[in-house]
Parts: sequence; C-alpha cells; structure tokens
Amino acid sequence: MKDYKPKKRLSAQTYIDGILNGERVILSRGITIIESDLESDKKLAKEIIQAILPSSGNSIRIGITGVPGVGKSTFIESFGKLLINQGYKVAILSIDPSSQRSKGSILGDKTRMEELSNLENAYIRPSASGSTLGGVANKTAESMLLCEAAGYDVILIETVGVGQSETAVHGMTDFFLLLMLAGAGDELQGIKKGIMEMADMVVINKADGDNIRKSELARLQYQNALHIFPQSESGWKPVVTKASSTKNTGIDTVWDEITKYKILVSENGYFIKNRNHQKIRWMYDNINEELKHMFYGSKDIASNLSVLEKGIIASEISPVKAAEQMIEKFKKTF
Amino acid sequence: MKDYKPKKRLSAQTYIDGILNGERVILSRGITIIESDLESDKKLAKEIIQAILPSSGNSIRIGITGVPGVGKSTFIESFGKLLINQGYKVAILSIDPSSQRSKGSILGDKTRMEELSNLENAYIRPSASGSTLGGVANKTAESMLLCEAAGYDVILIETVGVGQSETAVHGMTDFFLLLMLAGAGDELQGIKKGIMEMADMVVINKADGDNIRKSELARLQYQNALHIFPQSESGWKPVVTKASSTKNTGIDTVWDEITKYKILVSENGYFIKNRNHQKIRWMYDNINEELKHMFYGSKDIASNLSVLEKGIIASEISPVKAAEQMIEKFKKTF
Repeated sequence: MKDYKPKKRLSAQTYIDGILNGERVILSRGITIIESDLESDKKLAKEIIQAILPSSGNSIRIGITGVPGVGKSTFIESFGKLLINQGYKVAILSIDPSSQRSKGSILGDKTRMEELSNLENAYIRPSASGSTLGGVANKTAESMLLCEAAGYDVILIETVGVGQSETAVHGMTDFFLLLMLAGAGDELQGIKKGIMEMADMVVINKADGDNIRKSELARLQYQNALHIFPQSESGWKPVVTKASSTKNTGIDTVWDEITKYKILVSENGYFIKNRNHQKIRWMYDNINEELKHMFYGSKDIASNLSVLEKGIIASEISPVKAAEQMIEKFKKTF
Repeated sequence: MKDYKPKKRLSAQTYIDGILNGERVILSRGITIIESDLESDKKLAKEIIQAILPSSGNSIRIGITGVPGVGKSTFIESFGKLLINQGYKVAILSIDPSSQRSKGSILGDKTRMEELSNLENAYIRPSASGSTLGGVANKTAESMLLCEAAGYDVILIETVGVGQSETAVHGMTDFFLLLMLAGAGDELQGIKKGIMEMADMVVINKADGDNIRKSELARLQYQNALHIFPQSESGWKPVVTKASSTKNTGIDTVWDEITKYKILVSENGYFIKNRNHQKIRWMYDNINEELKHMFYGSKDIASNLSVLEKGIIASEISPVKAAEQMIEKFKKTF
C-alpha cells in the first residue's frame, strides 16, 4: 500500500459555514467526511449534518436509472446543461454498491460528463464506496442533504438499473425516471422486476436517425403497458416520451413533465407527505439494517446458519424451528 | 365471553398417524393445534411438524389472488371440482391477515363453496387468525405441510389482492395465478403495485354473456403488457386467458397451463431450486420478524420512536442519528 496521508480535517464550524455559503471545495471535503469510515470522521459528520439539516430539503430530487448502454451519462450531460441554462444549480450523485467490487464507479469517470463538470453550477460526485447497499445509500442521502444546504436546487441521483439500488434511490427521490432503448427486446433490457412500476416517467433514449420510428413504436407500447399499473398515490400518471441526448431532442420535455409533476404533487399535498414518509422510512431502514447486522454479524450465528440451511433443504428441520433455535442463540450472546 | 372448553388434545403420535393416514378430522384438529397460541399447543405443533416434515412437499402449490368481486370463490369451486374429477385431492387454504379485524375471513363462509366442500377429496380450511401477517403466513404454510402429509396433491392458497399477503403467498407457492375482470378500469381493480409482476398466469374471469368481447380485449391488452416485464428466472412466460366460472369455460385451460409450467420447471430444475429457496427464505423471514419483534415489542422503544418521528419531520434530528440512538437504547435492554 502506498503511504497515504489524508487531508487535515477542518473544524466542524468551518465545514458548516463553507457548505452554507455554497463553497464547492468545502462541500466536497464535507462529503468526504460523510463517506469516511473513521470513527472521528463519523462524529464530525454527525455534527455537520445536524447543523445543516434545517437548510436542507429545498430541491427537487430526481432518480435516474437505466441499464448500462442506455446512454445515461450523455442524457445527464444534456439534461444538466439544460437546467443550468435555466438558472438552476445541479448536483449529480450516484448509488452503485458494486463500484467497489468492479473497481469502476458509474460516475467515477468524470470525463464522461466533461462539459457539464466544467460548469460552475454543476457539482458531480462519484458514488461512495461501501460493502452494503444500506451503507452506500446512507452516505448518498446524507451527501444529498449537504448539496441542498449548499444551494443546489436540482439533485440527480443516478443508479444502474440492474439491482436493488433502484429501490434505495426511489426511496430518497421525488421523481423517478427510467431510461430505456427501443427494440432492445424485453428481457434484454435487464431491468429488474418492479422497477418499471416505480417509474414516474419512461424516456426512450437514443431516438435519433434510423431509430426514430422504432422509438415511437416502443413509446406507444410502454405507454399502453403502463396503463395496466394501478394508479400511484401521487395521483400522477406515468408518461412515456422519447429523447435523443446526442441530438438534444426531447430533453426539454423531460423537465416540462417534472415541472408538471411538481405542481401536481405540491397542490395535492403528496410532495410533503412523501418527503416525510421517506424521512421516517430512512430511520426505520437504518434500525432494521442494524438489527440484522447485530444478528448476522456474529460469526457464531453465521456458521450455524449454513448448517441449518442444509438441514432445511433435506427436510430434517422445519424453517420455523430453525429460526427459533437461532434467535435463542442470539439472545444468549448478550 | 362464553364459557369455552377446547377439545381435549390427543397425543402427538395420534395426530401424526392420523395425518399420515389422511384422516380429515385429525388433519383439522392438527391444524387447530398449529393455529393455537397456547404454549402447550405450540410445543405439540412443533412435534407434529417435525414428524410429518419428510412426508410433505409432494404437491403443486398454487397461489390465487384477485380483488373482492372478481369471483374467486366461484372460480375455486369450478377449478377444484375439475381437479377432483381428474382424481386429485385438493386442499384450499387462505391467507387473510385482515380477517381478525373485519371479523370476516375470506374463506370463513364455507357455504361459498358448498358443492366443493361436500366432496370427499376436497379439504377447505378458513384463514388462520393472527395479529401479524408473518404469524398468519407461518400458520398457513405449516398447515400446508400437514395437508401434503395427509395426501393432498394440489394445494390452493387464496388471498385477497389488496395488501402484503400476496408476497407471502407468492413466497410459499409454485405457481401464482391472478384473477382480473375485463373493463373494470386500471385503478379500479385495486391490485397493488408489484402483484402483476408476480403472476405466472392472469385469468380474465367472468368472460361470459355480454362480457366475452370485452374480456378478449382485456386479455390481449394484458398479454401485450406482460411482454414489457423482464423474463422470470423460471423461464416461463406468463400467459393470459379468459374464463367463466359460472359457465365453466376456460377452467381446464388453467390446469393445462399449470401442467405445462410444472413440466418446464421440473425439466429446467427451477421447481426444486425455487422450493429450496423458499424454505431457506422462510427461516430468514422468521428470524428477521423475530428480531423486529424484539425491538419494536419493547414499550420503551415504541414511545421513544414516536417522539423521534416528530423530530425527524421537523428536521430537528437526522434519521440516521435517530436510528443510532434507538439501537443504543435497545442494546441496553439486555
């Protein structure tokens, strides 16, 4: 390992003031504190978050997903530039629990959004690393609060549409956008079950050149298909549009629809209701995750479980009885 | 309260022998033991289940859901009679966690399936009561094992398509059947998000009289819509058919499709793989449920949580910090 010297930490107040003043460098260093696993940093992070909490929340939070190859980064680049041209400050975060394993975070390669990253009102931060989705999601959500406190009024949270992270992103955003390709075949798109149902909007991307007709067909198909879903509590009916990030067409429509959505849910009260629900949910998710960690984190439990699994498959012990045995064992560890 | 005297309990061996001999009365009394919340009965139930476990599993387990009014009981009556005519022994169980509140179990009214309930090879059991879905689901799944040990080779597990119980039923069955109505409008059908994606088969029920044309239209719509879903791990493509339980049309098609499914998943190995996965999952669900129960069951925790919820909504405390506080409190209770 290389000799690595972390940057000197600043005082909590310096981070807090800097973030509230919208200083990008301090914001970045603050997020680094949040992402750190050092105990002293965790304490510092708590102090920072507690102080900026009342200044957070003033943004529209947009989740964006789609499988690799769908053109997410090009789309985000076009979309981000449009927003900045309209006067918004845009922060782009990502959740990618696999980034550590694959050594390639989805937003790690900043050059993917070169133009955007050079704009003053854009802030791009690669995915936090971490061994559990819950841990990574926590860090991303807390980073989001910091960005909001620093004055970013549109937050884009990107994820790859292949795993559990979509649910996490859906749980921390106001609007969920799914990017698809025309004619890639149903299974091919690799979208996990349930993700389609979370979408507030589906955008058929790469609708340009020879692809336009196919994209319109796909649009109609998805639009019809979405009708079979039960209406969302938000009162919003998901829309399907097509766009080309390279030709820069259809990108403005995405923002128009999000604006319509924002008006609808502000008026019918769902916006606040959902935000409150998400905050409460966030606490419970953390509690439940920690309870599981306490249990499954015990080495003794883990080795017993694999023995019991074999017994269950062989019909030697009932799953309910096996569970009871483990819970008894767990209680004795205290 | 009326003076209630429970039936005298038999010895464990008497239950075990009776169930393995396919004696309906003993089977019923065995299920009553499983449903009981008395400590002595719980012990007895464990003994019975442990003994019959190796004789369980030899059935096809079919989950059936659909909103009230879709004609579930009439469908099950027609379907059950068809199976019995083909020589099968059919057990019908249900999951309805709301039954206790509403005082009306979905299968409580046996007269709904009068003809079927009079047949020797049909066994109908109303939903177990209980305060938690997990508890009710456990009891239903254990009752299912008893039915299998008693020689029932088709198990139908009914649920109402409006809540969380579908996931529980999906998690304990081999095949998941969704009943729908034509032209009831999308939202009207009240099917919760995600349920459509669990379906191996959708049956447009009440496809008779003036309703036939509308039903065929609905069938085509759903069939097209299901194409947008990613392929299931089973390798099975969900089918949509129409049926009339009163005219007794299309009921045989349902069994034909289930038979095709059974052949497919037996050959490709998914049947066993899924069963094993479900059994293991069953243990973990019980563990996780019990961990939550240990935590949320504490009065001290519960009162603190509601205070914290208010603080979170008012942005006075971060959800992550609130969760940490509660976990610390919990650890001190040991």
